[in-house]
Amino acid sequence: MVVQEGELILICLDDESTYLVRAETNRRLETHYGVIELGQLVGRPWGMRLKLRGGEAYVLRPTIEDMVMKVERRTNIVYPKDIGYLLLVLGVHCGSRVLEIGTGSGALTAALAFAVAPTGRVYSYDVRQEHLDQARRNLERFGLLQYVDLKCKAIGQPVEEEQVDAVVLDIPTPWDEIGTVRRCLVAGGRLASLNPTFNQIEQFAERLRQSGFTLIKAMEIVVRPLVVRPGATRPAQQIIAHTEFLLTAAFLNPESVEVNRG
Amino acid sequence: MVVQEGELILICLDDESTYLVRAETNRRLETHYGVIELGQLVGRPWGMRLKLRGGEAYVLRPTIEDMVMKVERRTNIVYPKDIGYLLLVLGVHCGSRVLEIGTGSGALTAALAFAVAPTGRVYSYDVRQEHLDQARRNLERFGLLQYVDLKCKAIGQPVEEEQVDAVVLDIPTPWDEIGTVRRCLVAGGRLASLNPTFNQIEQFAERLRQSGFTLIKAMEIVVRPLVVRPGATRPAQQIIAHTEFLLTAAFLNPESVEVNRG
Amino acid sequence: MVVQEGELILICLDDESTYLVRAETNRRLETHYGVIELGQLVGRPWGMRLKLRGGEAYVLRPTIEDMVMKVERRTNIVYPKDIGYLLLVLGVHCGSRVLEIGTGSGALTAALAFAVAPTGRVYSYDVRQEHLDQARRNLERFGLLQYVDLKCKAIGQPVEEEQVDAVVLDIPTPWDEIGTVRRCLVAGGRLASLNPTFNQIEQFAERLRQSGFTLIKAMEIVVRPLVVRPGATRPAQQIIAHTEFLLTAAFLNPESVEVNRG
Amino acid sequence: MVVQEGELILICLDDESTYLVRAETNRRLETHYGVIELGQLVGRPWGMRLKLRGGEAYVLRPTIEDMVMKVERRTNIVYPKDIGYLLLVLGVHCGSRVLEIGTGSGALTAALAFAVAPTGRVYSYDVRQEHLDQARRNLERFGLLQYVDLKCKAIGQPVEEEQVDAVVLDIPTPWDEIGTVRRCLVAGGRLASLNPTFNQIEQFAERLRQSGFTLIKAMEIVVRPLVVRPGATRPAQQIIAHTEFLLTAAFLNPESVEVNRG
Repeated sequence: MVVQEGELILICLDDESTYLVRAETNRRLETHYGVIELGQLVGRPWGMRLKLRGGEAYVLRPTIEDMVMKVERRTNIVYPKDIGYLLLVLGVHCGSRVLEIGTGSGALTAALAFAVAPTGRVYSYDVRQEHLDQARRNLERFGLLQYVDLKCKAIGQPVEEEQVDAVVLDIPTPWDEIGTVRRCLVAGGRLASLNPTFNQIEQFAERLRQSGFTLIKAMEIVVRPLVVRPGATRPAQQIIAHTEFLLTAAFLNPESVEVNRG
Repeated sequence: MVVQEGELILICLDDESTYLVRAETNRRLETHYGVIELGQLVGRPWGMRLKLRGGEAYVLRPTIEDMVMKVERRTNIVYPKDIGYLLLVLGVHCGSRVLEIGTGSGALTAALAFAVAPTGRVYSYDVRQEHLDQARRNLERFGLLQYVDLKCKAIGQPVEEEQVDAVVLDIPTPWDEIGTVRRCLVAGGRLASLNPTFNQIEQFAERLRQSGFTLIKAMEIVVRPLVVRPGATRPAQQIIAHTEFLLTAAFLNPESVEVNRG
Repeated sequence: MVVQEGELILICLDDESTYLVRAETNRRLETHYGVIELGQLVGRPWGMRLKLRGGEAYVLRPTIEDMVMKVERRTNIVYPKDIGYLLLVLGVHCGSRVLEIGTGSGALTAALAFAVAPTGRVYSYDVRQEHLDQARRNLERFGLLQYVDLKCKAIGQPVEEEQVDAVVLDIPTPWDEIGTVRRCLVAGGRLASLNPTFNQIEQFAERLRQSGFTLIKAMEIVVRPLVVRPGATRPAQQIIAHTEFLLTAAFLNPESVEVNRG
Repeated sequence: MVVQEGELILICLDDESTYLVRAETNRRLETHYGVIELGQLVGRPWGMRLKLRGGEAYVLRPTIEDMVMKVERRTNIVYPKDIGYLLLVLGVHCGSRVLEIGTGSGALTAALAFAVAPTGRVYSYDVRQEHLDQARRNLERFGLLQYVDLKCKAIGQPVEEEQVDAVVLDIPTPWDEIGTVRRCLVAGGRLASLNPTFNQIEQFAERLRQSGFTLIKAMEIVVRPLVVRPGATRPAQQIIAHTEFLLTAAFLNPESVEVNRG
């Protein structure tokens, strides 16, 4: 298995710095270990080693996690620790139709697209056209744009989609989209929201309770890297301890007749 | 959209206890809120409410996270917080071919199967036939068995598969399978291991470094639930703070000629 | 150094269960390892081993941490992780005069008394006489009552003390005591509050900012025990992750003329 | 209460930067808010406000926590979160005689001295004279040198003290001092060690178990600051998540005759 012209590759230096680039003729990557002529990698095997002036480099297949961490951005990205959990809780997979409100830089959009491809679809809305433009560039670079519709809308304005399998909200006032979610989420389906402050989580949870949602759960996910050295292993000293809280909920059928049981 | 005969459903009481059951005629679920005749749910809408003696219950579409948390088990399960992250780091998705060594109760196997379906495949090995039997029952219940091969093998014994896209190890001595991984993982592909002690992580990381792997990273993922009450929101008091450490690595091409660059 | 009649001792079984008792003639301690005649320990050396039917027991000198963890209580105690930090931030030591509002079971009161003894004093107020009674019994048992004044007062009612060196609040509505603090805390001195919800911390911080306090800091302190086994060391699985948030602040001089400088 | 000539003061700008300085005539402090003539603060009230070009500054009484965070240092300091807990577990207070091995910059030494003053004593040893010199300067600055003996010794070499009430080890190979601890710690007394890696904790715990110690506990203490804003409160994003693990243990009487009981 060899690298193809134009393929996305992850260059990894042995000091753990990484670069997500395209293997294209006449293109070069400048690193602090030296320059790499990217065209010369075409036709050569994945996993190859490169000897550079400053040390070794490796050519790896990028994963969706690498892509998420390398989106070009103006906004905070959603982190893999949160995305991975959301995908499971939302039950997103091949064929799912997912609504995202708050495209941002498109990091979460890319992960959703990767999960629903090739037969599903992501409908992603943002209030700012410049966010959508940047997300489009990121998705195009990752080869995932074909699974995504990017659209502009104001907060609270309705969406065109109906009966979507799951909804993700990544906006400061998620309660302003409860009406939207009620109109387009399949009954019994799941919703998730990402918000940095306690206050947003508290307010959104309360509004969801009053609006026909159940299984409302909130949490934060903390990743603690280990520094692994033979005979001297310890938790990392400085970490990113907080990004956003996650809130997940399930949508009850608004038209459901209640059934009396034992 | 209504519940079909035989479909898997999640019954959720309003005290947040949940039951994963099948909507089958002549089957009943006993809960501390009262009895639910499951056959009577067939043909009725998803997301419906049930009035029980003890309170309300709701009928939700189960997600893969619900399934993972409800596997029948003799062993510790792998938790959603870890599974979600692993799926991203391994880049597992529709069509992937994944090797798992250490089937256990099949919780991770189920999540892998859900992610690679319908066109991919999970090859899952365990040393104990009784683990495989239990995993088979869990996968069958979730409708995911068709995407999985379950096989018995001793630790260190080779596997039949070649050129798999990703490998997950969930065994106490992952270093005993480095040879296996080298033979069957695609060059430039990713490996992950789950282990509870720092000693295992330290030993495995060192052995991987000596065996042609790079981007070796170890971490733990901690979920901190929030208790959300209007005007009185706080982190949960008692939590599960540690399950397993995660180790991830990328496999270098063992036959790669080194290329000299700048 | 031998155990004296009537001295407080910590009996520690080799399974890590502990008992805080008095070495008194004709008194016996029943444990799941067997019965210990406490009078027979008098005149024998500290650190001695006892062979019981169920295993070994040890006779240790109790520390203030042992006492704090063994208070008899109806309320939540303040934990050593929080107490230790508070003592440092408040600068409490031998000779300090400290005001505590919210005596509770007296765990924190005991630690404060231990820190200010023998020349300082703790003035501790509670709204409920039964709390004060229980705190009195705990302090008496630990030999610390002589350093403490226990008094009953309603929230917001003034205290008799003036110019105390530090103030600790352990009540649900600490903002109701800002006036009290302003009247009795020495200018430039420190205040600390313990509260379980972020809402309380947010409200109190805001009120302090408006009331002439500075250096307002809030945090939580999490203790993660390690399970240490040769070759198999890992973080503890289940932990108490949250007890209370801590808020600390410094009191500015309400009468201070501002000085103009560069 | 006014600031005296030569007294240690904490200058705190309203952006939360702090300076620990002496109020001395003809001395000035340069800050990014402007210059403060320190001599002009003498005779003026504690807690006073200063109007500077860049904003407000406040004159506070420094606590021992402020001193610990402001030691001049070449080594890592021990953090207040750990110190506070250690003081409680060791039961250190007014009058205690404490042995410290591993003086470092003297941060922990200062906190110990503050806790045992005025009638107790800290005996602090280090292998490097330059550490002792720096600790001496820090202790002198804080007015705590009179309670401390600073001495140089090689690891494993005996100490002069006997029957000390508690021992703290802050060295990379604490197991090399087990003999020292056994000779000088009072029977039934407490020991604590600070070490950054799992491996050190595991090795030391095992050696202590074999050497007549009990109640061996290890943990890490994590401080998570809150960012408190009205309506927008959240945990801090970047934190120091790991400094050192703590290990605490109790020393059994090496000469104790075992007593047979029920």
